[in-house]
Amino acid sequence: MKEMSVIQKMIDELKRLKSDGMYLNDFFHTWKKSDDELAATFAVAEILRKMRENNISPKLFDSGLGISIFRDNSTRTRFSFASACNMLGLTVQDLDEASSQIAHGETVRETANMVSFMADVIGIRDDMYIGKGHTYMKEVADAVQEGFDDGVLEQRPTLINLQCDIDHPTQSMADMLHVIDHFGGVENLKGKKVAMSWAYSPSYGKPLSVPQGIIGLFTRFGMDVVLAHPEGYNVMSEVEDVARENVKRTGGSYKQVYSMEEAFIDADIVYPKSWAPYAVMEERTQMVSDGRFDELGSLEQRCLLNNAKFKDWECTEELMAKTKGGNALYMHCLPADITGVSCKAGEVAASVFDRYREPLYKEASYKPYIIAAMIMLAKFKDPAAKLSELLKASRKRVN
Amino acid sequence: MKEMSVIQKMIDELKRLKSDGMYLNDFFHTWKKSDDELAATFAVAEILRKMRENNISPKLFDSGLGISIFRDNSTRTRFSFASACNMLGLTVQDLDEASSQIAHGETVRETANMVSFMADVIGIRDDMYIGKGHTYMKEVADAVQEGFDDGVLEQRPTLINLQCDIDHPTQSMADMLHVIDHFGGVENLKGKKVAMSWAYSPSYGKPLSVPQGIIGLFTRFGMDVVLAHPEGYNVMSEVEDVARENVKRTGGSYKQVYSMEEAFIDADIVYPKSWAPYAVMEERTQMVSDGRFDELGSLEQRCLLNNAKFKDWECTEELMAKTKGGNALYMHCLPADITGVSCKAGEVAASVFDRYREPLYKEASYKPYIIAAMIMLAKFKDPAAKLSELLKASRKRVN
Amino acid sequence: MKEMSVIQKMIDELKRLKSDGMYLNDFFHTWKKSDDELAATFAVAEILRKMRENNISPKLFDSGLGISIFRDNSTRTRFSFASACNMLGLTVQDLDEASSQIAHGETVRETANMVSFMADVIGIRDDMYIGKGHTYMKEVADAVQEGFDDGVLEQRPTLINLQCDIDHPTQSMADMLHVIDHFGGVENLKGKKVAMSWAYSPSYGKPLSVPQGIIGLFTRFGMDVVLAHPEGYNVMSEVEDVARENVKRTGGSYKQVYSMEEAFIDADIVYPKSWAPYAVMEERTQMVSDGRFDELGSLEQRCLLNNAKFKDWECTEELMAKTKGGNALYMHCLPADITGVSCKAGEVAASVFDRYREPLYKEASYKPYIIAAMIMLAKFKDPAAKLSELLKASRKRVN
Repeated sequence: MKEMSVIQKMIDELKRLKSDGMYLNDFFHTWKKSDDELAATFAVAEILRKMRENNISPKLFDSGLGISIFRDNSTRTRFSFASACNMLGLTVQDLDEASSQIAHGETVRETANMVSFMADVIGIRDDMYIGKGHTYMKEVADAVQEGFDDGVLEQRPTLINLQCDIDHPTQSMADMLHVIDHFGGVENLKGKKVAMSWAYSPSYGKPLSVPQGIIGLFTRFGMDVVLAHPEGYNVMSEVEDVARENVKRTGGSYKQVYSMEEAFIDADIVYPKSWAPYAVMEERTQMVSDGRFDELGSLEQRCLLNNAKFKDWECTEELMAKTKGGNALYMHCLPADITGVSCKAGEVAASVFDRYREPLYKEASYKPYIIAAMIMLAKFKDPAAKLSELLKASRKRVN
Repeated sequence: MKEMSVIQKMIDELKRLKSDGMYLNDFFHTWKKSDDELAATFAVAEILRKMRENNISPKLFDSGLGISIFRDNSTRTRFSFASACNMLGLTVQDLDEASSQIAHGETVRETANMVSFMADVIGIRDDMYIGKGHTYMKEVADAVQEGFDDGVLEQRPTLINLQCDIDHPTQSMADMLHVIDHFGGVENLKGKKVAMSWAYSPSYGKPLSVPQGIIGLFTRFGMDVVLAHPEGYNVMSEVEDVARENVKRTGGSYKQVYSMEEAFIDADIVYPKSWAPYAVMEERTQMVSDGRFDELGSLEQRCLLNNAKFKDWECTEELMAKTKGGNALYMHCLPADITGVSCKAGEVAASVFDRYREPLYKEASYKPYIIAAMIMLAKFKDPAAKLSELLKASRKRVN
Repeated sequence: MKEMSVIQKMIDELKRLKSDGMYLNDFFHTWKKSDDELAATFAVAEILRKMRENNISPKLFDSGLGISIFRDNSTRTRFSFASACNMLGLTVQDLDEASSQIAHGETVRETANMVSFMADVIGIRDDMYIGKGHTYMKEVADAVQEGFDDGVLEQRPTLINLQCDIDHPTQSMADMLHVIDHFGGVENLKGKKVAMSWAYSPSYGKPLSVPQGIIGLFTRFGMDVVLAHPEGYNVMSEVEDVARENVKRTGGSYKQVYSMEEAFIDADIVYPKSWAPYAVMEERTQMVSDGRFDELGSLEQRCLLNNAKFKDWECTEELMAKTKGGNALYMHCLPADITGVSCKAGEVAASVFDRYREPLYKEASYKPYIIAAMIMLAKFKDPAAKLSELLKASRKRVN
């Protein structure tokens, strides 16, 4: 009973947030959403988690499909999306797309409609090609809107960006919810220092959307965000602009540096992670657009050689010792390249990773709830009322 | 409330149709079904659509599997089948079969039973090999019947032909429902001219079951059906026999011509679409049966060269202008080969396709409902009573 | 009504069995379970079957995932697992793992948690590498236990061994339930002779876990179990130890012989089936562990050549004639290599297989119920009470 009133209190808090702009809308970038909308997403995610812990089913759909389109391999995001859909009563249907093709125009428009006759939500991961991923998602969104307006589709499926070339909102929002819970509330984040740092990895072509997502979101909470990377590993300048705009409003700060150590000193949070150089990503996109697939191999070689110059960009115990109290919160979107475990030299020392395994897994555990919250806020006009109904009914998830 | 009484009226109409022959039966070819049975399929499809538009759930299965067996790639049909199953409460489980093998005998019998312990419906697409697809489906049907009779299977799954070498009933029925709605009722179809025409495509080996399905079904509605194709691109003679038999009964007409233009003149409906020459399909089937896989490439080359002689078989604006009022209903099962869009020269001019996009998508949107109707009529003895129950309960699809 | 009281009686019988050790526990090997626990598994399986035959839904989960991890191809087990999950209300989500890799350590721990945020059950098939399959499953089990203890996972998914290198409990339990029903009750099994025999097959590398599962389970029922195979085709000695321990307790017997004929004489049950030589399986495991993938081909050749020496190990009519009354119950886990049907020379003569098709299919039909029973006993503290509730509610599976 006590748990019930805790949940009801959380729902009451949710009521104060203005989130109706999310209704029947897509989720592309966190910076396109208002503060209240992000807060509502966190709130719904926490309520859904609490309900599940109390065996209350949040199944709002009697039937319906959640379409997943993955243009890049993904176990974590795939299972998170499947979990979120399952929780709400949607069945996942995968659309397999060749990752070597950049679809557009007629094909996108047609396929988007053909898979959406019963679709309530479409989740897309398309992060491999700079300038293409988000564009593709917009094309899908426009196509299903037109299909709905024309009476072709009975409902207009909501789009959820499961990682594009620009942002990775389900990751950054799950990360932030983890941070909020770790520091005991959003009100405790002001003035905290965040080191979003490049780190060495023997692999190639990791998307830029994780660092971009982090600087685009974390700068909204009055934190001091530092982006560190070697020369040439810069992120999209328009996302750095977003970060700079954010701090003006919230009293935090944003700066970019060329030293991992500088970023780590006195940091409360460190997020060391590899990504590809921006120029390489652009070159690769052009090659694929031109159909010059035979040149991809040599590009990869050049990139790996360049990466190897920065093998000392590793999150070691020495570096961790320089963080606030020597125990900053270590974060990663997983899987990490762990030195001596998954590779010879990687992003993080084994002992550091090992020490933070539990919080790392917890960080990941928020993602299904974040996705479910995004779906709920897009599909239900009054989510607080809906959640109250669910709480009142308290249908058991496991009978 | 008004909508409820509209739906109830539709259900009352359904009651007058004699469809009990469909109960516990499979759906292979439209011409094996009576007029009432086809009318019942359309009626149930329209009722299910209307229910969905009014957020009424037609979930009749609390659990159960819909098995899908696709021996040819298919996004559209796959999603339509998944949508239909989801709507009714069935979960789709895919059985992956190598498309290069023609299974039969012991293997078919055994696999059919092994996947059917919880299966309420099996949907099969097997259209690649002349003389094999329908035969395979019959083998599966016989196997599960035997399994049910022997007490191996708790229920006898119903088979739905999702495209075989002979017919493509879920396509032709969806097409016809689109035609009925477009012309404002089945009573308005008498005397309408339909041009089912071959069209050029740079691709190879498209099945014959779409044109066969159209001439086998559309000739039942008193329409004047013309099948046009270059020499050598004839369809199965037994399906032409079906068409000729149909028109005797319904007062329409059927003829075959060697000119796209002749077919298009004064047509109310045009369906320009590529398919493979019958002889090539037979040759390919023999090659695969014999295991002469190395010869497939040269057959494809010969076929493409032959196709190329008929590049002028394109649905152009000039041809469209010759149709009734210059605005015949353009139809296609999608995806179409659009000149200058998906290929250099194809089945249809870009401007024609573009103008008909909305009706084309609507045409496709009927398929999930047609499949759901086929399942319902096969699994429920008194579908009208069942639909009345659903309407009365009016359980919400989205809560 | 009569059927209801039959089911209630079966539930009452179940109440007498002590199965609480299965609650929140995994199912790895039958010999780790008590007699009562196995009896409870059979009882729940039979009750679920009876309920389904009477259109009573056993859907206990409102939502939730069943994760399947298959490191070896499998149609039968895959569909059985999917059927069991569907029956109980769980949605299957497949985790694709490369079958050429032996994952361990960090990767296993992380992946196990990442896929389990909403997972109620995990079914794993990993039978290809001696000394690895069970080890992998234990690692997954430990990882999700830790994740649950750390608050990462909201529930602790139960593991079901869908075939490892040591045991194949869902197969052997389904086989045994078939035997129990065939002989009219477990009380009629004492003194029955079982011939678990190697048989020739032109294929290579079939796992040892079927014969191991059979001798490890069937020796618990007072039966006289004979394991027959050519020299070099021995099974794991620790499982033979299990068999020897079992018979001490139950008054049956266990022996190993080098003659198919000796095993078949006066047998009540024969189970002729191919498997790989133990030494070959060990060598293959070592090769894969060492990354010596180029040597796998020659190992296969050597093994096939060796197999070919024992082509006369076939279940022929002559051999069947030597069994008890000439009509022993012929068993197989399917698919069988049938001489003249699926291969030139195989495990069984076509006429023998043909005669036993119906019982063979029935044998297989128990597997979904066995898996569902394993899940139910692991997830519900008082399965009898739960089943009584289900019976009382009698919600229809098909409305």
